[in-house]
Amino acid sequence: MRDTIILNEPIIITASASVGGEKEAQSPLKMDFDKMFSDNYFGEKTWEKAEVALQKYTIKTLLEKRGIEEKDVDFAIGADLCNQITSTNFTFRDYNIPFFGVYGACSSMSQSLVMASLLLDSKHFNNCLAIVSSHFATAERQFRTPLDYGGKRTPTAQWTVTASGAVFLEKEGKGARITKCHIGTITDLGIKDPNNMGAAMAPSAAKTIIDFLKNTNSKPRDYDVIFTGDLGKIGSSLLKELLKKEGILLDNHMDCGCLIYDFSMENIQSGASGCGCSASVLASYILPRLNSGEYKKILFVATGALLSATTSMQKESIPCIAHLVEITSAKG
Amino acid sequence: MRDTIILNEPIIITASASVGGEKEAQSPLKMDFDKMFSDNYFGEKTWEKAEVALQKYTIKTLLEKRGIEEKDVDFAIGADLCNQITSTNFTFRDYNIPFFGVYGACSSMSQSLVMASLLLDSKHFNNCLAIVSSHFATAERQFRTPLDYGGKRTPTAQWTVTASGAVFLEKEGKGARITKCHIGTITDLGIKDPNNMGAAMAPSAAKTIIDFLKNTNSKPRDYDVIFTGDLGKIGSSLLKELLKKEGILLDNHMDCGCLIYDFSMENIQSGASGCGCSASVLASYILPRLNSGEYKKILFVATGALLSATTSMQKESIPCIAHLVEITSAKG
Repeated sequence: MRDTIILNEPIIITASASVGGEKEAQSPLKMDFDKMFSDNYFGEKTWEKAEVALQKYTIKTLLEKRGIEEKDVDFAIGADLCNQITSTNFTFRDYNIPFFGVYGACSSMSQSLVMASLLLDSKHFNNCLAIVSSHFATAERQFRTPLDYGGKRTPTAQWTVTASGAVFLEKEGKGARITKCHIGTITDLGIKDPNNMGAAMAPSAAKTIIDFLKNTNSKPRDYDVIFTGDLGKIGSSLLKELLKKEGILLDNHMDCGCLIYDFSMENIQSGASGCGCSASVLASYILPRLNSGEYKKILFVATGALLSATTSMQKESIPCIAHLVEITSAKG
Repeated sequence: MRDTIILNEPIIITASASVGGEKEAQSPLKMDFDKMFSDNYFGEKTWEKAEVALQKYTIKTLLEKRGIEEKDVDFAIGADLCNQITSTNFTFRDYNIPFFGVYGACSSMSQSLVMASLLLDSKHFNNCLAIVSSHFATAERQFRTPLDYGGKRTPTAQWTVTASGAVFLEKEGKGARITKCHIGTITDLGIKDPNNMGAAMAPSAAKTIIDFLKNTNSKPRDYDVIFTGDLGKIGSSLLKELLKKEGILLDNHMDCGCLIYDFSMENIQSGASGCGCSASVLASYILPRLNSGEYKKILFVATGALLSATTSMQKESIPCIAHLVEITSAKG
């Protein structure tokens, strides 16, 4: 088993882009995003087309920020939460870029970073575009109940982010550096409630962090911040408990699902979720702080709940996974 | 753009395994499969659990054939057709193996081979387990109509295979060798009929084959056979027409979707489909012939139709992709 990998050469994140929707436009991070839309339809007629438009704005922004054209992209990797990852597939039908679709639910951005970093480390490529999105309306009606049903949200519920985050990864250039990767293994502690993703995912975050720290002989304090994807309030406190049981004190933790919204906002409950959450917080909040030198070294650990509406109806528990990357500052 | 990659060192396929269901047990390839079940429930109570059982039998067979244990697997990559690739995710919750879930619809086995080969070529790993499955009952009711509806099958329809194929890839050892890879780009020529996958996918197979032959300055006759995934009869003849327009004569083509069933069998129409089709034909039929020396060099080009039930209902056309690997005989 080879779960922790030290890259031969760091992979450089030379650009990032983040685009958000209506609720995100009221977020504490609103000034950090590249672009915000006040209409979650993004000018389209269906929610699914809207998510494609969201991804395309993000790619356009990313390529402009990096100052390169579509033809210069070696390959792309991407994901979303729609069945058969159709948002990402429908986005890339309009680009002439070799493409890999992946699925890791809300772990998709860390999975994409791990896979892209390892693929770039193979020396066959110079660069890779990685993009991940989620949309409240495409995800909520698909994973839980139809939106029109107006189901009451439980206190453990998390709000699926309407946002997309993209990064441009290169073998050479300026920017924060991915230096180590950890591939997750699937854990399942028997949680069955699709309205309590944080509790389901916390054990997988704990496993990945514990295994990584052990394999690299390091401790949380070696990092400025350990970021998780979207555990929310409930999942975050469970993560700390699980680590404490292993004798690991985690007092420099931040969760993207707790960062992106103000808890005084309507319907936030335990926080945010959706793979666009960690992807857009990485692009808008974390990477600029690594580029400025405010952070020297962080861990980015996004978790995914690998359920479907069918498995929930069949009363299955929720398998989860967490992939991890270590990212160091552009300023050494 | 880096679509065609010549691997630094060939990646060896040291073992393969294939398991099929009831209809596959009547197939012309039945003697080539490792195991056939006469009950598509595989002893389980739901179709979804059945597909997980199918994958687990395949992994067990693969590890036994290779003579190694779960703990010796560096990482796994896998896919299926269920929403959120739950069959593969639910399989791997019972293994302690670092795992990447991918989604390329029926191109998933060639996508997994391309990604795994490139990841192994990075020198961070010694081996990888790749597995792909489909199940008629989980796929048909999800992509088209409920099974109980008993909809009339069109002449263009293809029967989703209930089967799983797995391969064990290593940096060293004995077996057929993956020598080149080609990453697909998404094409969409406007086909909207989810009952005519072959017509939708043929242009993507054509694009990948044309681009690969051009990039490597080769011609179809350099290969014993060019295998496509599951174009069926209709897609296969369209592929030949599309290549002919480009001045490429394809007279050594075989399609896994035309190989696995006898066309005199009930409900076969244009042939077979499902990502388990090309995966199991690769494992049961193609690789043994490469190992024996009957084939010296082949191309394996599985295509994927990247639609969902939602996109079909929204009257979207069907984006498709084809990934390719060149595989040479174990006997040089």
